[in-house]
Amino acid sequence: MPTSEFETAAPTGDTPTRDTRPPSRPAAHDGRPGLGAHDGASFVASLADDREVWVEGERVDVTTHPDFQPMLRTLAGLYDRQRSPELAREMTFPSEVSGHPISLSYLTPRTPEDLDRKWLNSRHWVEGSHGQISRVPDFMANVAVGLHDFRHALGEVDPAFAENAERYYLHCRENDLVLTHGLGDPQVDRSVTPVQRPELGLRVVHRNDSGIVVRGAKQIATLAPYAHDVLIYLSPANYLREDPAYVCWFSARLDTPGLRILCRRTYHGQAHTLGSRFDEQDAMLVFDDAFIPHDRVFLLDDAGTAVKGFHALNRWSLYTGQIRLHHRLRVMLGVASLLAKSIGVDRFREVGAMLGELASYVSVIDLALKSITQDATRTKSGLLAPGSTAALDSIAGQFSERASAIVRQIGASGLIMQPAEGDLRTPDLRTALDLYMGGRDTSVEDKSRMFRLAGDLVIDRFGMRQELYEAWNRGDPARVRSALYTTFTDLPGCEAAARVLADLLERP
Amino acid sequence: MPTSEFETAAPTGDTPTRDTRPPSRPAAHDGRPGLGAHDGASFVASLADDREVWVEGERVDVTTHPDFQPMLRTLAGLYDRQRSPELAREMTFPSEVSGHPISLSYLTPRTPEDLDRKWLNSRHWVEGSHGQISRVPDFMANVAVGLHDFRHALGEVDPAFAENAERYYLHCRENDLVLTHGLGDPQVDRSVTPVQRPELGLRVVHRNDSGIVVRGAKQIATLAPYAHDVLIYLSPANYLREDPAYVCWFSARLDTPGLRILCRRTYHGQAHTLGSRFDEQDAMLVFDDAFIPHDRVFLLDDAGTAVKGFHALNRWSLYTGQIRLHHRLRVMLGVASLLAKSIGVDRFREVGAMLGELASYVSVIDLALKSITQDATRTKSGLLAPGSTAALDSIAGQFSERASAIVRQIGASGLIMQPAEGDLRTPDLRTALDLYMGGRDTSVEDKSRMFRLAGDLVIDRFGMRQELYEAWNRGDPARVRSALYTTFTDLPGCEAAARVLADLLERP
Amino acid sequence: MPTSEFETAAPTGDTPTRDTRPPSRPAAHDGRPGLGAHDGASFVASLADDREVWVEGERVDVTTHPDFQPMLRTLAGLYDRQRSPELAREMTFPSEVSGHPISLSYLTPRTPEDLDRKWLNSRHWVEGSHGQISRVPDFMANVAVGLHDFRHALGEVDPAFAENAERYYLHCRENDLVLTHGLGDPQVDRSVTPVQRPELGLRVVHRNDSGIVVRGAKQIATLAPYAHDVLIYLSPANYLREDPAYVCWFSARLDTPGLRILCRRTYHGQAHTLGSRFDEQDAMLVFDDAFIPHDRVFLLDDAGTAVKGFHALNRWSLYTGQIRLHHRLRVMLGVASLLAKSIGVDRFREVGAMLGELASYVSVIDLALKSITQDATRTKSGLLAPGSTAALDSIAGQFSERASAIVRQIGASGLIMQPAEGDLRTPDLRTALDLYMGGRDTSVEDKSRMFRLAGDLVIDRFGMRQELYEAWNRGDPARVRSALYTTFTDLPGCEAAARVLADLLERP
Amino acid sequence: MPTSEFETAAPTGDTPTRDTRPPSRPAAHDGRPGLGAHDGASFVASLADDREVWVEGERVDVTTHPDFQPMLRTLAGLYDRQRSPELAREMTFPSEVSGHPISLSYLTPRTPEDLDRKWLNSRHWVEGSHGQISRVPDFMANVAVGLHDFRHALGEVDPAFAENAERYYLHCRENDLVLTHGLGDPQVDRSVTPVQRPELGLRVVHRNDSGIVVRGAKQIATLAPYAHDVLIYLSPANYLREDPAYVCWFSARLDTPGLRILCRRTYHGQAHTLGSRFDEQDAMLVFDDAFIPHDRVFLLDDAGTAVKGFHALNRWSLYTGQIRLHHRLRVMLGVASLLAKSIGVDRFREVGAMLGELASYVSVIDLALKSITQDATRTKSGLLAPGSTAALDSIAGQFSERASAIVRQIGASGLIMQPAEGDLRTPDLRTALDLYMGGRDTSVEDKSRMFRLAGDLVIDRFGMRQELYEAWNRGDPARVRSALYTTFTDLPGCEAAARVLADLLERP
Repeated sequence: MPTSEFETAAPTGDTPTRDTRPPSRPAAHDGRPGLGAHDGASFVASLADDREVWVEGERVDVTTHPDFQPMLRTLAGLYDRQRSPELAREMTFPSEVSGHPISLSYLTPRTPEDLDRKWLNSRHWVEGSHGQISRVPDFMANVAVGLHDFRHALGEVDPAFAENAERYYLHCRENDLVLTHGLGDPQVDRSVTPVQRPELGLRVVHRNDSGIVVRGAKQIATLAPYAHDVLIYLSPANYLREDPAYVCWFSARLDTPGLRILCRRTYHGQAHTLGSRFDEQDAMLVFDDAFIPHDRVFLLDDAGTAVKGFHALNRWSLYTGQIRLHHRLRVMLGVASLLAKSIGVDRFREVGAMLGELASYVSVIDLALKSITQDATRTKSGLLAPGSTAALDSIAGQFSERASAIVRQIGASGLIMQPAEGDLRTPDLRTALDLYMGGRDTSVEDKSRMFRLAGDLVIDRFGMRQELYEAWNRGDPARVRSALYTTFTDLPGCEAAARVLADLLERP
Repeated sequence: MPTSEFETAAPTGDTPTRDTRPPSRPAAHDGRPGLGAHDGASFVASLADDREVWVEGERVDVTTHPDFQPMLRTLAGLYDRQRSPELAREMTFPSEVSGHPISLSYLTPRTPEDLDRKWLNSRHWVEGSHGQISRVPDFMANVAVGLHDFRHALGEVDPAFAENAERYYLHCRENDLVLTHGLGDPQVDRSVTPVQRPELGLRVVHRNDSGIVVRGAKQIATLAPYAHDVLIYLSPANYLREDPAYVCWFSARLDTPGLRILCRRTYHGQAHTLGSRFDEQDAMLVFDDAFIPHDRVFLLDDAGTAVKGFHALNRWSLYTGQIRLHHRLRVMLGVASLLAKSIGVDRFREVGAMLGELASYVSVIDLALKSITQDATRTKSGLLAPGSTAALDSIAGQFSERASAIVRQIGASGLIMQPAEGDLRTPDLRTALDLYMGGRDTSVEDKSRMFRLAGDLVIDRFGMRQELYEAWNRGDPARVRSALYTTFTDLPGCEAAARVLADLLERP
Repeated sequence: MPTSEFETAAPTGDTPTRDTRPPSRPAAHDGRPGLGAHDGASFVASLADDREVWVEGERVDVTTHPDFQPMLRTLAGLYDRQRSPELAREMTFPSEVSGHPISLSYLTPRTPEDLDRKWLNSRHWVEGSHGQISRVPDFMANVAVGLHDFRHALGEVDPAFAENAERYYLHCRENDLVLTHGLGDPQVDRSVTPVQRPELGLRVVHRNDSGIVVRGAKQIATLAPYAHDVLIYLSPANYLREDPAYVCWFSARLDTPGLRILCRRTYHGQAHTLGSRFDEQDAMLVFDDAFIPHDRVFLLDDAGTAVKGFHALNRWSLYTGQIRLHHRLRVMLGVASLLAKSIGVDRFREVGAMLGELASYVSVIDLALKSITQDATRTKSGLLAPGSTAALDSIAGQFSERASAIVRQIGASGLIMQPAEGDLRTPDLRTALDLYMGGRDTSVEDKSRMFRLAGDLVIDRFGMRQELYEAWNRGDPARVRSALYTTFTDLPGCEAAARVLADLLERP
Repeated sequence: MPTSEFETAAPTGDTPTRDTRPPSRPAAHDGRPGLGAHDGASFVASLADDREVWVEGERVDVTTHPDFQPMLRTLAGLYDRQRSPELAREMTFPSEVSGHPISLSYLTPRTPEDLDRKWLNSRHWVEGSHGQISRVPDFMANVAVGLHDFRHALGEVDPAFAENAERYYLHCRENDLVLTHGLGDPQVDRSVTPVQRPELGLRVVHRNDSGIVVRGAKQIATLAPYAHDVLIYLSPANYLREDPAYVCWFSARLDTPGLRILCRRTYHGQAHTLGSRFDEQDAMLVFDDAFIPHDRVFLLDDAGTAVKGFHALNRWSLYTGQIRLHHRLRVMLGVASLLAKSIGVDRFREVGAMLGELASYVSVIDLALKSITQDATRTKSGLLAPGSTAALDSIAGQFSERASAIVRQIGASGLIMQPAEGDLRTPDLRTALDLYMGGRDTSVEDKSRMFRLAGDLVIDRFGMRQELYEAWNRGDPARVRSALYTTFTDLPGCEAAARVLADLLERP
């Protein structure tokens, strides 16, 4: 008899059945528990629930509100892609539970070949989304893999946590769930510590036999309106609080009563812009005494475990995030190169140097990623985890910012002064456009399209948000770098080398 | 009997009368020749003509097309402002021709007090437009002042040129004309010289007794849809062509038959954004065998005079451009400071340093501008011209780019995650917004508004275009800097100082 | 009857006489009190005293130790220069006390003409020293002017302080004293506040009727071995200590018993290097219970007055420091330009841009300095003080660092591979050197000399110390910038402009 | 009967014998042909020949001149190290020719294990020299490996070239030769092409049956005074000349008559500085009709083969150069970290960020190097060649420059104001030094030593030359980057990705 929201997903071999939980608690996704990897239609259908999504003061239904349709179509396309004959074999594998194909994003890698498959699947996701969706679902699926991997440590705090974590991972996997997270506190007053403003932190305000009640807000939950669940696990800035009430890891359906999703304005912009297709949204999640049933709670009170766990959960997702950065920079290099060629400046000394600089970033990340996956090590739970991406995480924003600046310098005023599609379709203007707005060995269509794409990437709000995201999504860049320094395993070796050399200078 | 388009503006003391030119040639502005400084209504009315403005493949009437209304209202407001009781005395002066008040932008300064009045007027223009309109009409009015000042040199080529220049200046002044210019060639293939692609350069293709016929395209004509005339005078990159047909200075009404104004897409964006109020537009001007009557021609064939003239024409406008930059950076500093305070980071060591860095740019420009106007020298025609802004022109893009980057670093994710006005007006959300999106000693309204303004300035297409404009509007930044080096009057002194020191090292 | 060390210098009209103080207290400079502006010989003679100067573990007499002779000769040359027929009139003025010519560095400016004379004198100092002596004596003389100017505020704490300050200023002026200062605490552990390590701060450990006894160390006392006195007044980092014992302003002769001057290694280097001529030295001053007579004490205990006074004392010296920076950057530009020309790269696009960038720095500082002196305001004591250099002080290190980097990029491997003078004098090598190491339109002598000078400036320890000095001598750069931000008088105006614009966005 | 200088090294199994070549041609190294890997004594002895080394106008014998002894001792130490019991097994292997141990630097890798051994040996060289010798002998030995590998292509031009290349490689290997190279033309006038100034290029001026006569100069030949031979092969800038006379690859003993070695001034500096131990020297090589026997000529006239060959020769040496950079940056990180800790700033937010930034460079290079060696591919001659380091070569100068700047910012004034060893040994000063110049948890000895080392690295001429070297040794940085762009194998993929995305925007 089902005792849990996740039971149908548990490795029991049972046929997936409809969720029978009482309506008084957060409902699982009706109708398709355990049906495996989504296609576009099933993904869209799965979002039809009672979630409270707000945008510009309006409560909206994301499955029907016009501003959300373009991104919804984009995501649906990606899910169709994973089930397409061409890619299904490289993006899914059969569930040992249900036999249904399930997403390779949820693969728990045990061999180098597993890792290769896993990263190939990640590559399909970022190539399918052209590097333009920061929180492509594959990202958080890998955090769920991390949760699964870390379950034994959670079990040392409370055996139920391990069990919950494992069942939740299976639930996500078997249902191809899209997750979001919310790591940061509201940006209200950084001059005071959370301890001084406790009401700003997400915390447990009530506990009873069936679960916990949480209150507070978290940001930035990218992709939240398009996700099924939010997974809450704390960033380093959080577990320093003195009160254990702040240490709580759990998942919540996004239609959980008391949970509100406050979106920023949409960037859908004009048709034919990147923003109109790839606006993944960012949101603040407000928990207003939301009830979280016990089987969705993975950790409480134990700050030490939370510290260790944060890095354990993120290790695969950070790797896939770098795959995305790599592809995004590849697109930037391609754009920069084609811009330069189309206006005949690619042979200019300083332009060639800038293009080479961008190529060096693309290439170095590629080389590093290969090493990191080859440095994979065995975790306690038996998975093969890639080496640390900490160095790349420290350098990502720097490379990305330079890439944007380079495209801006090469494109220059051409990023502003281009014909629109409407102009190109106007016969009366074509002679002038062909003559005055064409390029070297390039038609005016191809040239202007590439410049308009470049504009979307490096001067539009869509692209500039990506830039900010790149710099900040791994945390405050200064903090990320400090962390690399304090944890750098080669530091003692470096210091020893410095000491040996200094000592040498003393010998007469 | 009127012999010229500009006659009514000539210093004859005649009462301004309606233009009586035959309809077959470009018509002057109906109804208000010589009526002096515009107010908002007269400015808007003055744009009603047959100009061919294209945007997104559609030919539009800027006085009625919805996308152009916000900026039109903004400009009308600025013209109302110059005629307002509070500012009329500091922004206009009585015409010695008509007695009507005319814009101080057209003042030809002869005393330090004149310069002070002139710059105070410029300051009113940039403050009224919050530093957000790069090509505020005051800018090109100062180029017309330069044309007037340079008339004697033009007269040495042909006495009629001097006469035309002078009458045209008076025409502009007495009618408070808004000008645009178009300095650059189309960005088609920078690897070939214009000599190799002559069809891309603007050139005289026919001359007769009444005027010249021109063909070619020019960009970027900022503000073109809102201007009355375009003033064509050539940038240094142009007069290097071998064929004198490329040396042609003239003005043209924007409704000249054969002249088309091809606009980029509008940035009007969502309501409540800067783009919706301050989109000054950028355009390519296509001259398709446009006829220019002789009295609008100021120079032909003489490349040497064109070279000298370019700098003579720009000297006052470059100064007023720096006044604008100064104010724009002041706004940036104000925004950065208020952002930092509202989230409690202004006392953070690195944030304070960035704010101080921004303040140093604002302050240094201010100090330099004071010196430059005090270094004013007398021109051949008897005007008092400010010293060179070449050093500031070289450094402007660098300061501006850093200012944007600083606002971006301080604002960080707050530039993305803010409530919209609609959210703030929704009672159901206010409790959460007050608590989680407020700031230190700042209401959620004030904080979010300032962050949204910051977003418009540093991550929106509107603001990023401003950034590109700042870097490129004085020409290719590398060329601007090289020009400063080759013309720097202190260079021989610097080299001499280096030689003295090097020689010293040789003495035993 | 002389009651003070400074009496002979007091404005009594007395003929200067030999110091008659008892040998048990710090002796004044024997023999030439009140003899006015030094020439080279008198300057060198004046340094012959019992000062305890240590370098590399050796106690040395700077007037005879070989490593100190080159700089001593350089300084003597500068003093001969101020008394030279050509420059005496622009570098000295007759003392109203003694009738002797005294240095214009000590002029207390009351009119714009005074300021012009003062800055012309400063310019002679920095040009005579080629911008290579950071702490040219003119710098600290201007601090003494500040002390004089601030005497009334000191008098409000204790009338004797005002009297001491005034007499000391006259003593310095009439004797053409060279001062050093020591603002910083030892760099031992910046993670603790001085309050936690009180033994590291300079403090009063004993007071009696005749004076105070001080203990502690200060750095970096540039020029100390070549100076007569040290003037101690506290930097902002110092007066935050809780114990008033740390607030003490005084002067001390450098041969004060208990005061030791610990020099860093000399940079005299090989002959024909800048270091061999311009090594001004840097020192730590250790006060080991040094006795300071009352008439050399200018402030005790009052932290509030110390805070105000710090800026009052520095206002003229910071200005003269910027004159030096300006000239140093002029030398850098001259060197960069001559390097580029000698190897034929000055017309390269990116090199021209770098040279123009450097020129923009030189020019902007020049323009700002003119404004700042024109912004002069009247102080309480009636002097005319230049406006604040805070913006330039914030930007100086940034400009200077870029200047060095530019010279390095243009010089490249040429900074390494040059013939020495010995090579040039070797007939056997000349054919090869003329052919392979010459330059474009430049002899091998001129080219290699300029490259060697460039090397001294941008890759030698001498020049790199200058770079560090430029960045740090006004204090920690981050602190200097923060201070500009918090004191920027236009900040409220900037914030108001930002608010006006933000509010505008709200109006529908 | 020996027919060649190299015969004794040929794979004949003959016992090494004394060279019997007639004195009229360049003599091989007397006495120890084929004796295998040097120890210190044999290395020093091997330099005793008639080479013409000039420094500061003096012709010197490097084996006895005092300025050259410190570096000679350093090199001798490195050779003793390779023969030491601890390292001999990891730095040498037995010659199949002579049975003597020979340097692993000359290993021609055929398996991944070979590459591992090879790089381990490289690592021993750079660790033994603390990353401070740019042209550690291992570097050029790897170029000789490249020559061996490229012999077949040379043989297609002339079978003798292949034979010469192979025998020369064996000669180098069996005698453990130290090579230098000289790639660049004299820096005389970069505004003219070599074709316009043919006398500046190294060229063949005479050919006869026994060899060629060459004339011209090459720079920068680092390590030349300490090397046995120079290997001339042309950089890309050279083989563009029209006259085939400029295409000539050969080796020459450094005592070849007509070859002069013109050194820059030595950096030996004061004792206890890095310069006194690691001054590898830089030289111009002047060939004044030097005769090169045929068996030392590897290529003539064929520019196409020269182009291909340049990259083939450098592939292993560029890899080992990156191993050196990696270790040099490790030392920098160690120094920066220890500086920061010793003055208690390592926990400062911005310092931690800078240290993390430096760690990210160290780590990223390490990761990339691992990938590059794993990407090894088989060459035509059957060797295993590492993948391209082009991306690292493009980024090296950038990382290195930032590393220096970071050490400079952390060290600040502490890089200037430190006690010398002499001070530390002076009992009279110790109390003050212990108190005022110590550090946090660090003795004054340790702290000041580390700061002095830092000074040598980042403000001394020694360290700054390293910086220049890092930026320029792979060629003009702009050219290196351009080359990466034009040869980047992923560029078509990047452009395709950009096109796919641009096309997507067009679909309605």
